[in-house]
Amino acid sequence: MPEEDSKNSLKKFGKKIVEQTKKGKNPEIKLPLRNLSNIIYDKKSRTLTLGNKEGTRNFFNVAHAKKFLQTIEVASLIKKELLNTGKHEHLRGVFYMTKRTIPGTNVNLVDEQVESDKAIEDLEVITGLSREQLHVSANKMGSMVGNIIIKDTGDTIDCSKLGRGGYSIPSITDELSFSKVNADYILYMEKAAIFERLNEDKFWKKNNCILVTSQGQTTRGIRRLLQRLYEEKKLPIYVMTDFDAWGFYIYSVIKYGSIALAHASEKLTIPGVKFLGITADDIEKYDLKKHLIKLNDQDIKRIKQVVDYDWFKDNKDWQRQLKMMKQMNAKAEIQALSSKGISFISEEYLPEKIKKKDFLD
Amino acid sequence: MPEEDSKNSLKKFGKKIVEQTKKGKNPEIKLPLRNLSNIIYDKKSRTLTLGNKEGTRNFFNVAHAKKFLQTIEVASLIKKELLNTGKHEHLRGVFYMTKRTIPGTNVNLVDEQVESDKAIEDLEVITGLSREQLHVSANKMGSMVGNIIIKDTGDTIDCSKLGRGGYSIPSITDELSFSKVNADYILYMEKAAIFERLNEDKFWKKNNCILVTSQGQTTRGIRRLLQRLYEEKKLPIYVMTDFDAWGFYIYSVIKYGSIALAHASEKLTIPGVKFLGITADDIEKYDLKKHLIKLNDQDIKRIKQVVDYDWFKDNKDWQRQLKMMKQMNAKAEIQALSSKGISFISEEYLPEKIKKKDFLD
Repeated sequence: MPEEDSKNSLKKFGKKIVEQTKKGKNPEIKLPLRNLSNIIYDKKSRTLTLGNKEGTRNFFNVAHAKKFLQTIEVASLIKKELLNTGKHEHLRGVFYMTKRTIPGTNVNLVDEQVESDKAIEDLEVITGLSREQLHVSANKMGSMVGNIIIKDTGDTIDCSKLGRGGYSIPSITDELSFSKVNADYILYMEKAAIFERLNEDKFWKKNNCILVTSQGQTTRGIRRLLQRLYEEKKLPIYVMTDFDAWGFYIYSVIKYGSIALAHASEKLTIPGVKFLGITADDIEKYDLKKHLIKLNDQDIKRIKQVVDYDWFKDNKDWQRQLKMMKQMNAKAEIQALSSKGISFISEEYLPEKIKKKDFLD
Repeated sequence: MPEEDSKNSLKKFGKKIVEQTKKGKNPEIKLPLRNLSNIIYDKKSRTLTLGNKEGTRNFFNVAHAKKFLQTIEVASLIKKELLNTGKHEHLRGVFYMTKRTIPGTNVNLVDEQVESDKAIEDLEVITGLSREQLHVSANKMGSMVGNIIIKDTGDTIDCSKLGRGGYSIPSITDELSFSKVNADYILYMEKAAIFERLNEDKFWKKNNCILVTSQGQTTRGIRRLLQRLYEEKKLPIYVMTDFDAWGFYIYSVIKYGSIALAHASEKLTIPGVKFLGITADDIEKYDLKKHLIKLNDQDIKRIKQVVDYDWFKDNKDWQRQLKMMKQMNAKAEIQALSSKGISFISEEYLPEKIKKKDFLD
């Protein structure tokens, strides 16, 4: 029972505090720092992770007391209301559940959601459990179709029989089990519109793959789902985004992780994922120049940031892509492929790229 | 075959133009005006609809020629590439498919998506078909669970057996068929987080209902799905949003339609839908005062707009709600109910409100 592990970790954490208190000590919590100075891009594992700098938080310290209390309160709530009942709650709900006035004072335990969010992150690094294992979720987003059968809370969900809609991915995917997977790879795309095109064309059936989409940034639920399929079912994953700095970044988050979630890298990043397109070379090759969109100031600013991220910096293929983007002074959308014919993407572009393994790493 | 009707409407439209041309006339298109002066709030049917002002667009008129061509081009593309093949395309894809240089000139047929979008709207009012019937879609969004079995492209989808994720609603829902529906009502909510709470609590099973959510504004696909279930299956629909002007507006769009889509009201609005909460009275009754959030400038501006919309203006219950919102100078989120207990919403709030028919109309 994985829930038992989570409960035990929280129990252990609570016991430590109780023991310190009984001994008359100033209760303290030790935890890894999560600020930028302690976030490291590990060139070997190619992921963003936390370094080993630690901080201490004491109860009898005016600067620490409130955060100390918040961490304990959230830990208690998660244990009692979520893990013990098997229920899950969203970050916003946890905030409302935590928000109360400390008895005998005018002080609220938390005033803003950022405080309960931070307390949950604290618990993640203290216990080594992910937020999902603590039963706390965030956005629900995205869809999946293909030859995969999932089991969840007693239901058997065959994602090859869900019409043009598909399976609506829950915010927490850690507890799904994969009872049958028959696919050669996963195609993940930034845009739901492309997902609908490929699903209507039965691309997944003809090419024996699984299609997954969100809209914009990839949720943790989807990242974890992709990672689990990659690791447990050894499925290659190809990512399709627009040809712009935002699209490239979406890819990099799936692959290497993000600064904000460096502490959760282990459970979210997928170093083996590949970028399928749209690339600068696709623009040439598939004659999409007519459909380029001029970069605006925000695009240019974002390119400058992305170029300098460690995980793009040491990769000459990506530096070349970003350089070409700047030289063209333009970006392009996946949908530009529609100009070559409504099903050009499913009948020519994708089969050719995948056959030739024309990916970026 | 509903597709045949759509094809015939477009054929009829094309034939008229050809006949005019053959007779040596200046080809013209007559169509209802879609500007504000021709958008009417019909107090009787309580929907926003187009009035009977008409405009004429001529081919031999420098001010009309380009729009004329765009409408014809989009009509031809929809007939040939979409209706004839049975495929569907998103607005953005139609734009890329339309975007080409007029032979022998330097002029692009369309430069911006807004032009192809307008041409599609023209076709809607000319033919009386909805955009969906023309096989053109927009956002895919939202999820559904409950005792409903859907048929789509040969698949049978049982929405009571999709675990914690649910059915991912496609962007076009006109072509779904409902093979079995066993529910007393539909509960539609603005927030996917609440949907996950209710689904985890098996609220739909215990209360024999269907749960539907999007995130923020309701897509056309969801509005059409709700409308069809309301009309074909006679299911009451209750809407749950935050207590703020944006939430009230989400409700009003489902019920009365929107200015931008007044021409499509007939196929989208659901006059019988009811507002369940969060109301100003709920704040008092369920002791949520502590969780009110102060109005910001945008909220106040939005309240002023909403108060003056015709469909809120003539309704004293809504005027009272908006007045109380201004007096409290505060808004509240659905999630505030979590402060009363994680499953308070599914075990107390909703059953009580529904039992007492404590709705706003």
